[in-house]
Amino acid sequence: GVLGSGDFARSLAVRLVCSGFKVVVGSRNPKRKASLFPAAAEVTFQAEAVKKADVIFVAIFREHYSTLCDLADVLAGKILVDVSNNTEINHHKESNAEYLASLFPACTVVKGFNVISAWTLQSGARDGNKQVLICSNNQEAKRTVSEIAQVMGFTPVDMGCMSSACEIENIPLRLLPAWKIPIFLALGLFLCFFTYNLIRQVIHPYIREQKNKLYKIPIEVVNTTLPCVSYVMLSLVYLPGVLAACSQLYYGTKYRRFPDWLDQWLQHRKQIGLLSFFCAALHAVYSLCLPMRRSHRYLLIETAVKQAVEKKMTIWVEEEVWRMEIYISVGIIALGLLSLLAITSLPSIANSLNWREFSFIQ
Amino acid sequence: GVLGSGDFARSLAVRLVCSGFKVVVGSRNPKRKASLFPAAAEVTFQAEAVKKADVIFVAIFREHYSTLCDLADVLAGKILVDVSNNTEINHHKESNAEYLASLFPACTVVKGFNVISAWTLQSGARDGNKQVLICSNNQEAKRTVSEIAQVMGFTPVDMGCMSSACEIENIPLRLLPAWKIPIFLALGLFLCFFTYNLIRQVIHPYIREQKNKLYKIPIEVVNTTLPCVSYVMLSLVYLPGVLAACSQLYYGTKYRRFPDWLDQWLQHRKQIGLLSFFCAALHAVYSLCLPMRRSHRYLLIETAVKQAVEKKMTIWVEEEVWRMEIYISVGIIALGLLSLLAITSLPSIANSLNWREFSFIQ
Amino acid sequence: GVLGSGDFARSLAVRLVCSGFKVVVGSRNPKRKASLFPAAAEVTFQAEAVKKADVIFVAIFREHYSTLCDLADVLAGKILVDVSNNTEINHHKESNAEYLASLFPACTVVKGFNVISAWTLQSGARDGNKQVLICSNNQEAKRTVSEIAQVMGFTPVDMGCMSSACEIENIPLRLLPAWKIPIFLALGLFLCFFTYNLIRQVIHPYIREQKNKLYKIPIEVVNTTLPCVSYVMLSLVYLPGVLAACSQLYYGTKYRRFPDWLDQWLQHRKQIGLLSFFCAALHAVYSLCLPMRRSHRYLLIETAVKQAVEKKMTIWVEEEVWRMEIYISVGIIALGLLSLLAITSLPSIANSLNWREFSFIQ
Repeated sequence: GVLGSGDFARSLAVRLVCSGFKVVVGSRNPKRKASLFPAAAEVTFQAEAVKKADVIFVAIFREHYSTLCDLADVLAGKILVDVSNNTEINHHKESNAEYLASLFPACTVVKGFNVISAWTLQSGARDGNKQVLICSNNQEAKRTVSEIAQVMGFTPVDMGCMSSACEIENIPLRLLPAWKIPIFLALGLFLCFFTYNLIRQVIHPYIREQKNKLYKIPIEVVNTTLPCVSYVMLSLVYLPGVLAACSQLYYGTKYRRFPDWLDQWLQHRKQIGLLSFFCAALHAVYSLCLPMRRSHRYLLIETAVKQAVEKKMTIWVEEEVWRMEIYISVGIIALGLLSLLAITSLPSIANSLNWREFSFIQ
Repeated sequence: GVLGSGDFARSLAVRLVCSGFKVVVGSRNPKRKASLFPAAAEVTFQAEAVKKADVIFVAIFREHYSTLCDLADVLAGKILVDVSNNTEINHHKESNAEYLASLFPACTVVKGFNVISAWTLQSGARDGNKQVLICSNNQEAKRTVSEIAQVMGFTPVDMGCMSSACEIENIPLRLLPAWKIPIFLALGLFLCFFTYNLIRQVIHPYIREQKNKLYKIPIEVVNTTLPCVSYVMLSLVYLPGVLAACSQLYYGTKYRRFPDWLDQWLQHRKQIGLLSFFCAALHAVYSLCLPMRRSHRYLLIETAVKQAVEKKMTIWVEEEVWRMEIYISVGIIALGLLSLLAITSLPSIANSLNWREFSFIQ
Repeated sequence: GVLGSGDFARSLAVRLVCSGFKVVVGSRNPKRKASLFPAAAEVTFQAEAVKKADVIFVAIFREHYSTLCDLADVLAGKILVDVSNNTEINHHKESNAEYLASLFPACTVVKGFNVISAWTLQSGARDGNKQVLICSNNQEAKRTVSEIAQVMGFTPVDMGCMSSACEIENIPLRLLPAWKIPIFLALGLFLCFFTYNLIRQVIHPYIREQKNKLYKIPIEVVNTTLPCVSYVMLSLVYLPGVLAACSQLYYGTKYRRFPDWLDQWLQHRKQIGLLSFFCAALHAVYSLCLPMRRSHRYLLIETAVKQAVEKKMTIWVEEEVWRMEIYISVGIIALGLLSLLAITSLPSIANSLNWREFSFIQ
């Protein structure tokens, strides 16, 4: 049974029908809404729909839950699946599912399917990976809904009892939570190093020698800033592991919890590492672009003309040649190794490595 | 039970035996074929094999289905699994599975396993992702075959009733259907812009000033063409969304179906975007190669020599310097952002993003 | 039931409790260990825990299996799940699971969960892909453990009977076995070609003309070596397919097993191809870095000054210009095509292609 006639209700009905279930849709205006649903689904009044179904998907907004109170008698003993989402994180004090359970104490409420979009419901048969997080206080009801999810082509994941509902409802609202700290960290580091390099390469020569080097800002200053950020970020990836080991040695046990800041840091290592790689890759591209610039061309011609006029034939500083050759080749090798690390952090590749292989690559 | 002794029948038998099933193979010449099958599988005459099995995989060509008609009595009541594939899309009027069902009305026919190759059957225990699309008019039989697929390590996907068989049979024959239109679009755009740039950069100078600039064709003309194609393709990614929104506003409802051309366009956005990124990346590589060319070197030396002979020391056009610096740095940032979009379109990463994160990145 | 109180036992208990199972932990010192386990798990003496449980996870080291012999009477008839790992490949003559089975002939032993790390157990609810390889001589016990794994959010994979236990136990110890031969092959080829190029570009000019070209070693010599390695590796990807076809034509059958060396070679094609792509990509980066070098700058200025002093205005060798333009543009196209091949070898993309699409791209 499906209560509601919005986008989600329709997509749910379509998918359930396609998966071989008998579907009854309950609507307050079945005649007008029937055309929205697949022909194989029976669209009828809410009370009637509820009577015919054992598992009822409540696809209506939290604000309208109370309108179902008239059906409390018919609903008694049925499994209600709360598929609702909020518009803000922790908008209400109790989760939607818990609110629904408090309204209908005679029903078994299961939270689930809220992480699936209407679009995925309609088109997703090919993406067998999609997970449906499910929680409920009733093991039997949870198992029933899990089986429905599995037949629909999703992977049900048991998230424990009803108190997890709040967490599950927050999942579709989160916005890259693991990336926030690393990104602000990278931006902060970039700003610091950028200011330093700006003073060193542009402002200082201007004040001391009145030379106008402003043209260096967009590329050269950025290019010397990026590897600094990259190096500091890379060291921040490996530092917390060392701190954690020290803490374990100091306390003589590995069962003591790390302090919260260290725990957070340990969990953000992957994101910090990927941003470090991103900066290193940008540095490589910027460096490769250096000889394309007009300023590079002008400086080259200037030097050549100067030497030609002074009839100086050969300038070949062996040390400078070697420094550049070694700098470039070490840079390429370092970027190649960082690329390998970045590739192994792709979920599909990380899943195919065992622990020993992963730590070997690290 | 498995009927047939081709590659697929053998691999199927191997995998079924490995998954702990009892396997009986039916062959018209069991003695000669027995050596091809694993020792744990019993190879016997067709009629005998059918008698001993409840679920029978029919691993023979559609052309030979009629040879089984002698077994119709023994087959009655059994579940026949049609694993066959066609050699052309929509080769026959009715799908192989429907044809089999019409030959044996007393059997329950299930379509499935045709999307799995013999190679995957033998080696695939490690790739738990592989999906087996299944359809049948009988829910019970479908469930039985789904369970077999699951035990074999595949993910069964319910595709509804027998009328989907035709669609399932076409899947292994499709050749990147979603890419055809975007690729021809990109090629068409490339040709137009290439012709325009060829006329502008090579033919026009030749006619007006008799200058031979043919050497520009392989790199410079291609390099000015690629970003044009990339930009137009990128705008074609976001245009249909705007058109769809306008259409919804105009008709005042979001339940009206879009016209077919718009629907097609909306569904090809991802492929168009990836091709746009591909062109942008190629443009970056071509641009980076510019200073490596002999012609670049010759022109540079020519300018230097000319200036030296005329004793003109300093040429430094501030405007040209800035234009190039800004052009390059904006280009790098644009490519970096496009790369992020491209990476999030990898299936394994797209699956780990929720809708809010995906639209944020977009 | 869980026997043991190490990291793995604790993580297992946490996950089982979270998945809705009733968990009893058996320890020799339940009072001291109780604090390590979740509150919902009952921690008691081993004998008591065993009595209360039907499925018992034996999370202790192989060396201590014999300490359980006192419990043999209570354990009789229960399902024992061996989750142990070894520290070396093929360390013992018989696998841990077989050893456990020999100690407790009255129990049903199932091997499983050893490929899952304690970390994945605690945190992995979101990674639905993780596979649990399971084997046992008893189909019923295997099915029970498979169901537990599924409820815990893992994908159980049936690996057949107990004789596979040894193979399953070796999996967490393997270290990129498919990459060993290709990597040594690439290193060998690199060394050969590097020596040849070193002699040609550095040693020979030194001996013949006393010219010091040592600065070429880190970049130029490496850069001419990489495409040679890449080409040879690429040809080694397609050669074994041709040899296999020849062998099949010669023997007139495709059912004859290939010789072992050819079989090994065929199975390493993907890795050889990826290393070939890696060398080609490195070659591209090295080539792009060439104009950034000091030596390139010095040579350019030298030529310009020489020409200016001799008042030679125009040098423009049309053939050299064309050779370079074509070399670069063909190189870019080749790298673009190799990139496509490399991308389609990512597991998540390879899984979404059918056989016809895969061979089309190849």
